[in-house]
Amino acid sequence: MLALGKKRSCIREIFEYSMRRKAEIGEENVFDFSLGNPSIPAPAAVTESLCELIKNMDSVSLHGYTSAAGDMAVRRKIAQNITDRFGFQADENLIYMTCGAAASLTVTLSAIAKKGDEVIVLSPYFPEYRVFIENAGATVKEVPCNSADFSLPVAALEKAINKNTRAIIINSPCNPTGVVFSEGSIIALGEMLRKKREELCTKITIIADEPYRELVYDGTFVPYIPNYYDDTVVCYSYSKSLSIPGERIGYIFVSPKMQGGSDVFAAVCGAGRSLGFVCAPSMWQRVAARCDGIKPDISAYDRNRRLLYGALTEIGFEAVNPDGAFYLFLKSPLADANEFCALARKHELLLVPSDDFGCGGYVRIAYCVDEKVIKRSLPAFKLLYEEIKNGRPS
Amino acid sequence: MLALGKKRSCIREIFEYSMRRKAEIGEENVFDFSLGNPSIPAPAAVTESLCELIKNMDSVSLHGYTSAAGDMAVRRKIAQNITDRFGFQADENLIYMTCGAAASLTVTLSAIAKKGDEVIVLSPYFPEYRVFIENAGATVKEVPCNSADFSLPVAALEKAINKNTRAIIINSPCNPTGVVFSEGSIIALGEMLRKKREELCTKITIIADEPYRELVYDGTFVPYIPNYYDDTVVCYSYSKSLSIPGERIGYIFVSPKMQGGSDVFAAVCGAGRSLGFVCAPSMWQRVAARCDGIKPDISAYDRNRRLLYGALTEIGFEAVNPDGAFYLFLKSPLADANEFCALARKHELLLVPSDDFGCGGYVRIAYCVDEKVIKRSLPAFKLLYEEIKNGRPS
Repeated sequence: MLALGKKRSCIREIFEYSMRRKAEIGEENVFDFSLGNPSIPAPAAVTESLCELIKNMDSVSLHGYTSAAGDMAVRRKIAQNITDRFGFQADENLIYMTCGAAASLTVTLSAIAKKGDEVIVLSPYFPEYRVFIENAGATVKEVPCNSADFSLPVAALEKAINKNTRAIIINSPCNPTGVVFSEGSIIALGEMLRKKREELCTKITIIADEPYRELVYDGTFVPYIPNYYDDTVVCYSYSKSLSIPGERIGYIFVSPKMQGGSDVFAAVCGAGRSLGFVCAPSMWQRVAARCDGIKPDISAYDRNRRLLYGALTEIGFEAVNPDGAFYLFLKSPLADANEFCALARKHELLLVPSDDFGCGGYVRIAYCVDEKVIKRSLPAFKLLYEEIKNGRPS
Repeated sequence: MLALGKKRSCIREIFEYSMRRKAEIGEENVFDFSLGNPSIPAPAAVTESLCELIKNMDSVSLHGYTSAAGDMAVRRKIAQNITDRFGFQADENLIYMTCGAAASLTVTLSAIAKKGDEVIVLSPYFPEYRVFIENAGATVKEVPCNSADFSLPVAALEKAINKNTRAIIINSPCNPTGVVFSEGSIIALGEMLRKKREELCTKITIIADEPYRELVYDGTFVPYIPNYYDDTVVCYSYSKSLSIPGERIGYIFVSPKMQGGSDVFAAVCGAGRSLGFVCAPSMWQRVAARCDGIKPDISAYDRNRRLLYGALTEIGFEAVNPDGAFYLFLKSPLADANEFCALARKHELLLVPSDDFGCGGYVRIAYCVDEKVIKRSLPAFKLLYEEIKNGRPS
């Protein structure tokens, strides 16, 4: 724990450099693309729900303990919305309210994985997956996404699965690539997993980590994985959809179609208790239920995405146009993304090298920033690109 | 985790029986003393702070991520209050905001304890201590409080300490006894621990679990343990003091006088990350800072305490008059407290037998209920006592 506490997260280190640098040369002269902190305010419904609850609900009930899995009315509302929105018959008794996405993942992993188990992650992946999987005593197995477009590598997954494989984390829309896995690929994944389960006589659970579900562009369809594979646990968070990442509210949903699902749910309750999550914040549970399914106004992110992708590819950079989330995954023009980031920093561009995401040669650009930051940064990107192409890296 | 999830907490089971029974015979006819859920509303300052924050603070800042250890202004305010209230020079850099008392404990235990370590608890103790200690890989060592008055058993502790002892949890005011450990006994504890540390060349940390600190009666003095022993971690929660147990907000404070304290703090940060606590709920951090140190109006609890202790001892029951918290620990007139609770249930009195607290022969009565419940329950207590004394247990 000491090593983990002392090891600075690369992203946070850049963020702290950014604070210092802004103080030195002025906020408007630093282009910080490091943090995935939503830059749009919470939808009006969030503030309205908060005010209505504070005004109308009895304090002891509003702020008191809920049952460990969450307030039953909240869970019922969420289950109903799942049924309505995704055409998947949900069950409130299999919904467990959590303190956000990280808690959803640590609780789920502690519930299903044990020492000796392998959990597959698709690289590039959110770096904390490794911390969470190892905390549950399991080991991480990285499988690279298809390199051309970061699509779902079904064939590579099939090769990687063995009798120790306990789960696969699927994160779509993906942090850091912004890619949404197509329905065809999810269907193929389900078929392959059913085949492997039978062949190996094991359980293989899909952990669908979906904090970016509502953040998609151009009407991209995000398949609801329980519709395609029965042994699925959905980990959801309201952080990004409602722009409330600091408030820590989300849920775990165990598919009612999962064999032994009620035991998995009981283990989720046990894991939550053991890790110290007594219940998810009670007032935020009720806000989440009232705002569940609200489509956030992501037009600002979409404008940023178009502007950034258009301008950077015109300059000459290569990137996959993101379907969702608020990240652009840019190919580094230098083989070493760390070297590229160091050069970029000289132009006050703060980018995150992809190495921590389990893949080299790229940078993550979080475009959940004010549009002005992007506009002002473009000349710096151009200079940076030309400097590299003209072979004058310092 | 499955076993833990399936094993019903005794307290929750009684609570659920209570719900069913109330539906059957009417709420006013069931006397439920099982749950430690505050029955007084949150102080006005809580609601005022919430409204003021929602009205005046920018949504993105209010609901956004704070640093993992918490918002620095919040931590500074809390450190200042510790310094002012307890005459102990605190340091905001050693304060880590948490999702409540359970999180404070799991994070602290994961940070300092490892497999093979022993953590001492004083019986009777809060049952979840065992779950949290075992989750950190350590083993529980029970040391009984002095039997006459549940005071701090310094001599027994000295005998129990060995080279594997890593920490002692001190919970004063105590759940379930309501006892506050005297200053004399805390001084003696500190002296004994310093001696044992030197003798065994080990570290022995006091984990001061203090959710009931503000709930004390008759002006009882609650010693601030960092003033008496350097190797102390304070685990605090606002659940009981601000009547917001469902909102999950508290903190860990590592004493600046602890040798190697900055490493312990770094390990706390690592453990929080690993268990899935990204940051404590951001708006509640700010409410906590604004309301830290507010003395809750506990006159209702105090009335209940006097009424219940007075009436029950007059009937003939034996109990220690609680100094704090909102529990009365009653001696069972039958050797088996479970048998006593079963008899009590026939009179619609729902009490928690002490066996789960690591000591037999008592029951816990949570008097954080409406005064009317206590008043109406007294004839039932009297009938119950007479039935037992007349040797007619059914």
